[in-house]
Amino acid sequence: MSTNAPGGAYAPTERTVPTRGRKRAAYDRDLVHAILDDGCLCHLGFVRDGAPVVLPTLYARVGERLYVHGSTGSRPLRAAGSSEAGLPVCLTVTHLDALVLARSAFHHSVNYRSVVVHGTAHRVEDPAERAIALDAIVDQAVPGRSADSRPADARELAATAVMALDLEEVSAKVRTGGPNDEPEDLSLPHWSGVVPVRRAYGAPVPAEDMAPGAAVPGYLAALATL
Amino acid sequence: MSTNAPGGAYAPTERTVPTRGRKRAAYDRDLVHAILDDGCLCHLGFVRDGAPVVLPTLYARVGERLYVHGSTGSRPLRAAGSSEAGLPVCLTVTHLDALVLARSAFHHSVNYRSVVVHGTAHRVEDPAERAIALDAIVDQAVPGRSADSRPADARELAATAVMALDLEEVSAKVRTGGPNDEPEDLSLPHWSGVVPVRRAYGAPVPAEDMAPGAAVPGYLAALATL
Repeated sequence: MSTNAPGGAYAPTERTVPTRGRKRAAYDRDLVHAILDDGCLCHLGFVRDGAPVVLPTLYARVGERLYVHGSTGSRPLRAAGSSEAGLPVCLTVTHLDALVLARSAFHHSVNYRSVVVHGTAHRVEDPAERAIALDAIVDQAVPGRSADSRPADARELAATAVMALDLEEVSAKVRTGGPNDEPEDLSLPHWSGVVPVRRAYGAPVPAEDMAPGAAVPGYLAALATL
Repeated sequence: MSTNAPGGAYAPTERTVPTRGRKRAAYDRDLVHAILDDGCLCHLGFVRDGAPVVLPTLYARVGERLYVHGSTGSRPLRAAGSSEAGLPVCLTVTHLDALVLARSAFHHSVNYRSVVVHGTAHRVEDPAERAIALDAIVDQAVPGRSADSRPADARELAATAVMALDLEEVSAKVRTGGPNDEPEDLSLPHWSGVVPVRRAYGAPVPAEDMAPGAAVPGYLAALATL
């Protein structure tokens, strides 16, 4: 278990220091938070019968804790709940920011921001914390939305399992900038540069059972122009 | 090890049949290929010292085989190369297609398409297959690009490790459509519907060392209008 260093950074550990690409690794707390806060979908890895499993799932960050949720019947949540020891996981969030085209095939790359969190996930049993987590997961995808929806009732809360994972053993990796062509390749005729990639939101589409002409909430209009 | 069923589908196995959400699981080969072909970034899971590790990496599909690449010094590639038995992995590709807003917090969801591949990755030693794989990884991100770049030379090829993972134990999961509100929630005042999400490409940005006015290749212009 790592302890957090002073100065706003996560303490590197043996498994958060990459063997390659160390110059791209970062442990700054604000950077990690910003990368996490820019997404809502993570890839959660765990070990089942000795083999790795990676599943996409929604998440939320609340301070130094991440939450994921799922049906009480889902495999990772059952596994996390079946043991006091919790479930060892690796939770990864990645944003693809650009395609990087070099003159050589070898130097092609992508610009990205990623966070990898190692740790042990535990089932959240406290109803108050579960409610906070579920609201946070809704708000992580659509900031402001949880306040504009019907809160979960007792039956719904009972059907939903929540896992918590503390931000302790954490690293970020970031690549920015253009291609790193070899000097001898600069005279080649191939186009070189970057193609930005971003997540774009389309215009909100009302459900078929919505009354015609219902106004789109401001928090959705704000999303669409991001 | 699964065998592939006739009729264009992957044979379900114990670990590709979810305990929850079975109606969203699919094994259709064309669907799996389409989801894989719509991306270039996967999350690769493996087990290291008994704990799960999930790393983002580029990939390519060539027929019924996926390739990932990396430095010969990277951990998963060293692990895959250090054993005849290969490296057990789980490779997952996810596309977020929409945010789904229900009147109740509980029924919030996302539309997505994902593919999860279980199997054992092996280092590719054959130079001809390695070259095909590396071109495919470039073309997976930018179709047509590998033909318009300098091919890897012997030194670059030697520095690059490639892992192959066959598509045998594979499942897709897809959610589409609008929110599934409870009938008794339909009269609530909250907006309900979906917000489409897609990957958008910006205008290509030439490298600083490019000659001014160089034409943007057609395959990039095509990307930008996707």
